[in-house]
Order: sequence, then C-alpha cells, then structure tokens
Amino acid sequence: MTEQHNTKGRRPTLADVAKMAGVSKQTASRVINRSEHVTEETRARVLKCIETLGFRPSALARQLTSGRSYTLGVVSNAAIGYLTTGDAYTGMVRQADHLGYALLIKEMREFSRSSVEIMLNHLIDRQVDGVIWAGPEIGDSHAWLDDYPVNDLPMPLVVINARKRGNIDTVGFDNFQAGKIATRHLLSLHRHHIGHISGPMDRSVAQQRVEGWRAALAEGGQPESGNLCVEGDWEAPTGGPALRRLKEMCPELDAVFVGSDRMALGVLFEARQMGLRVPEDLAVMGIDNDRQSAFFSPPLTTMHQDTPLMAEIALRLLVRRICERRGEPYPESCAVPENPLLVHELLVRQSTLGVMPMP
Amino acid sequence: MTEQHNTKGRRPTLADVAKMAGVSKQTASRVINRSEHVTEETRARVLKCIETLGFRPSALARQLTSGRSYTLGVVSNAAIGYLTTGDAYTGMVRQADHLGYALLIKEMREFSRSSVEIMLNHLIDRQVDGVIWAGPEIGDSHAWLDDYPVNDLPMPLVVINARKRGNIDTVGFDNFQAGKIATRHLLSLHRHHIGHISGPMDRSVAQQRVEGWRAALAEGGQPESGNLCVEGDWEAPTGGPALRRLKEMCPELDAVFVGSDRMALGVLFEARQMGLRVPEDLAVMGIDNDRQSAFFSPPLTTMHQDTPLMAEIALRLLVRRICERRGEPYPESCAVPENPLLVHELLVRQSTLGVMPMP
Repeated sequence: MTEQHNTKGRRPTLADVAKMAGVSKQTASRVINRSEHVTEETRARVLKCIETLGFRPSALARQLTSGRSYTLGVVSNAAIGYLTTGDAYTGMVRQADHLGYALLIKEMREFSRSSVEIMLNHLIDRQVDGVIWAGPEIGDSHAWLDDYPVNDLPMPLVVINARKRGNIDTVGFDNFQAGKIATRHLLSLHRHHIGHISGPMDRSVAQQRVEGWRAALAEGGQPESGNLCVEGDWEAPTGGPALRRLKEMCPELDAVFVGSDRMALGVLFEARQMGLRVPEDLAVMGIDNDRQSAFFSPPLTTMHQDTPLMAEIALRLLVRRICERRGEPYPESCAVPENPLLVHELLVRQSTLGVMPMP
Repeated sequence: MTEQHNTKGRRPTLADVAKMAGVSKQTASRVINRSEHVTEETRARVLKCIETLGFRPSALARQLTSGRSYTLGVVSNAAIGYLTTGDAYTGMVRQADHLGYALLIKEMREFSRSSVEIMLNHLIDRQVDGVIWAGPEIGDSHAWLDDYPVNDLPMPLVVINARKRGNIDTVGFDNFQAGKIATRHLLSLHRHHIGHISGPMDRSVAQQRVEGWRAALAEGGQPESGNLCVEGDWEAPTGGPALRRLKEMCPELDAVFVGSDRMALGVLFEARQMGLRVPEDLAVMGIDNDRQSAFFSPPLTTMHQDTPLMAEIALRLLVRRICERRGEPYPESCAVPENPLLVHELLVRQSTLGVMPMP
C-alpha cells in the first residue's frame, strides 16, 4: 500500500476506498451493495481496496444506501419462554450472523388481534426487513393469521411451529409422523398396552403427536389403547403423576410414549419408585432428544428433533422472501423449498430395547 | 366519547389526542414523554384522552421525541452459544419487556480489539440506548475492558459473567464462595478424598469454582486433595471419563464436586457402570441446579444458581445508568446496588445424603 492511501489510525471511509481504487464514491457504493452495474474488473479492484484498507460500511450507511435495516424481528411467546427452552434461538442466531443480519427480539404475552397489530406496527416502525413469528401455536394464538392480510405488510413474515395456513410461509416439524413412528417402534416390540403422556393439549404440537400415536395404534390393531392418554405440561415433574394415573387406568400398561424427554425423565424416576423395571416391565420412549437423554437411567429411546436446523431454515426462507420482494437474487443457501416440514429420527436406546447384545 | 373524536378505524394520532384534550400537540407530546412542564390537571386530561382513543405512540415517534431508541444491545459469545445454554436470556427478555425495551441481539466469535471496535461501532450506528456485554469470560475475551475508555462510549455498558474490573459495571455470581460452600458440605459428611471435575479452565467461572474448592479443602485440613482435579467441558459426556481418571489418580476417592449439573449426570451414569453406590461409595454434588437434576438417579445435591435473576439485575442496572446519564429519575425497580455479586444456595438431595430418614 502506498503512503497516499494511509488512513492514519482513523476508520477508513468510503471516500478512501473510492480514491484508492480510482473510482467514484457511487461506483464504490455499488460494489458494496452488490449492484450489477459495475464491470467485473472494477468490482475486483474495489473489493481489493476494501480489503487492503480494512474498510467496513457502518450499519447506518448500509441502511441508507441499500434501503435495508439488516435487522430481522423475532416475535416469541414470553408466557412460555419459547426461545429459551427450545434450541430454536441457537439456529436463528447462527444463521442471522452468517447472513449479516441482527435480530430484534420481542416477546408477547397474549395474542389478541389488537396486540398483534401493535406488535406488527412496532416492527414496521423499527424498520425490520422481515419477521419470524416464533413460539408454538397455543389455543387461538395464531388465529389472526387466518384472515390477516399478511402479504400487504411492508416486510415478509415466516411462521414457525404452527399448523400450515393458506399462502403463509411456515416451517415446522411433522409431529403427526413422529408420533406414528414412535408408536410403531413400541408396537414392533410386541407391547400390547401402549399409553401416551401428552404435552398441554392446547398446543398444536401436542395434538399432532397424540394424533400420530392414535393413528399408529389403529394401524397396529390396538385402537383400544387410544384411551390411555394423560396430559402433562412438558416438564419432568408431571411425568411421574401421569405414569401413576396410566397404571390406574390400565394395570397391564407395558409401554409409554412420552410427549417430551423432560417428562420421560420424570417417568423413569417414578418407575424406579414403583419397582417397575425399564424396559422389561415398561418400555419408555420420549421425543425431542434433549442433549442429556443418553445419560438417563436407563438411556432414553427418543425421536431426534433438530430444532436449530428448523430455525435456520426459517431464517433462510425469510431472507429469500426479502430478496424476492426487492427483485434481487438471494444467497444460494437461501434456496429452501416452500413450507418445509422436517422429520424426526428414531434413536433407539436401552429404555425400550434393554441392554444391547454384544456383537 | 362524542362523535367528533371518532377516529373511524384508523390508528389515532397525536393530533387526535391533542384535539380531544384541547391542548397543543407539543403539550400532548410533553405528557407522553413525562416532561415536567405540564400542570397536573392537563396531564390527567391528556392521559384520559390517550386511554379513551387507544392512542399508542409509535416506536419511531417515541424515538424522535425522546432521543431514545428503547433498544438495548446484547452481545454474546456465538462460539459457545451462551444465551441458549444458560437461562440468562429468559431474565433479560422478561425485564426488557417489563421496562419497555426491545433487545437487539448480536453474537461474536472472537474478541480481538478490532472485532470489539467493530461491534461497538455497529451498536452505536444502530443507536442502542445501552449494552449488556454477556457471555462468560474465556481466556482473554474481556482483556479489551482493561484499558478501553468505556465511559467515553455514547451509551452505558454493563458486563455480566466476568471478573470485576476498575470502574466498569459488572453483575455476576460469587463462584469462589459457591465452590467453598459445596466443598464444605462434602467435608461435613466426613469425606476424605474430595475430587473436583472442573469446567474448561480458560473460563473465569471454572477457575473461581476450583479456587473455592481448594480454599475449603485447605480450611478443612485436607489440602492434599487439591490435586484431584480433572478438566471437563461442562457437558454430560465428559463427566464419566473424568470420574474414571479421578479414580485412577486416587482409588480411595469418596466424594466429587462436579463443576456443572450436566457433567454430574455423566458422573452418576458412569458410577452405575463402575458399580459404585451413590452416595455410600461416592458422594456426588453438582452446581447450577438444572431444572432436571431433582429427577436424576439419585436426585442430585447441587448449588442453586438463579441465572435469570442475575440477568434481570444486569438489565435494571443498565436502565439505571441510561437514566442517570440523561439526568432523569430511574424506575424504582432499577435501584440495584453497584456491582452486585449474587450467591448460590446449597440444595441437599440424595446424591450426598442418601435416603432421607422418615420423620
């Protein structure tokens, strides 16, 4: 680098870059904003100068020149602390960071039409480029989506963790299928009284898992077990009492599909208290694949759910929509399919299969 | 409400409020921004009209009239996913929501002086009112604070989860004291070979817990056990191998203070594999009080750590600083002491005390 381009300790500016590259500020700006009206040769020269000078466009400058805030709104459900208990946050942050966006996080407690309006207006005021509507569907929390003119909003919106609706972008898991596969696994072990401990029944996720369990029972010629369902709240303390209730309803209970790994931990605890051997007397399986379930006593068979990946995909889809609305090409990584429905994977451990035979 | 104040389905504006209250827009604005130059009677009348009309100042309008963005920057450590594994996020979101702020979340991967500069400039560009520097101290991740002119920044900064430094606002736990109390509990059970499984030793939190453990051993006349330390990574899978290593170093090992509940789960798992009875052969205690540790096998003695509370306090301190800089009174809830150091609480369960005797 020659002396004349030394920026002497101060932060280099766009003017420094333009001067060093021998182009106008407009041209340098076009390169930064990936405009197409620049020759390859000029682009390469400007990029080299940006690197040499260590130039970084400020967020505000970027916003002014591109008409974007590079901020994405994330609306979650404060009442249940959704972003903290799941791993969705991990995936969002990772992907936002990767794509150059900041996240503006907002939590809501109730989802009346007027609260939703206020929140959307708030996000519009803050000029977010797009919105992820996170937090699971609880009761009628997502009812506003049924007739809200989402496509008239100044920014695109992607909904995660809710039932599919019309032409609204959604990303989620196939919880019906997961409930079915979990139950098929227990059926394959020749269990004849397969109960279920569900999550809160006002959640669409819990409902779908129950529906999958019932469908597999019917398929497996065991529809009468479909009554053996007790509601929990996803957390460990409700697992034990739910197991006791199921045993009262059906003393021959020999398997239980538990709606979350955390509740399954409570079930394993209570089974020990009751003198039940797992899996000999009672096969237990969970769903979620919490990081710790491999160390439960015994290790828990579960359905692996890649929540961070789901959140990443939602974010990529949102960035794709942002670019599409602006008529710009989107990053290759954002070429995700519409309304992707992710699948769980069956992870078999000792709580259903007992000690694995040595090879 | 009379006909002339009907806003006919559109969002009511400041002008509507002023008209209905019979005051100028400036006066209505003063009431909204809690300026003192308004009589009590006028204030009451304007507030009543605001309520009647359902007027809500937009975030942008609020920002323009008050010179605040009502946004707080939160910088965390992406490499370790700090905000997701701890419960700090829960506390921040709850408190931000309560005090009327949004959170702008940013994650960093490395903490060189230039990366920190870029991040701070980024937050300044986005006009945050204050910054929480979250994510634990790892190696020299916080070294920049030693000589950075933090008080020259246009917004106040509060650091959580790091060692105390000069006149920088910090909020955290007394991990030295926690390590001491945990070890004193094991000493009180007449254990003579008390090992420790630490977190990663480049973390100040892990170092402080080790120091507390050693201090209690010295105090209890058992300084030679101070060599029985094996490093883990906070997670369950490292607990088992660390226990095996400690048993090799000291076959008489009869107690272990484990640096996290997650690693303690791995220790309990491995103890079962090794045929060790807990607590008869080996007393095991953790620290953190993960929500699930009461359901471990056996239930885990631990040090309860109220991370959401710590994060809430950090946020309140930050809002106090924001108000102080502006010469405004701060909300009563923000009257937290300077540099608060929170304490852990000992929670005794079966992994150290065995089955509790019936009363």
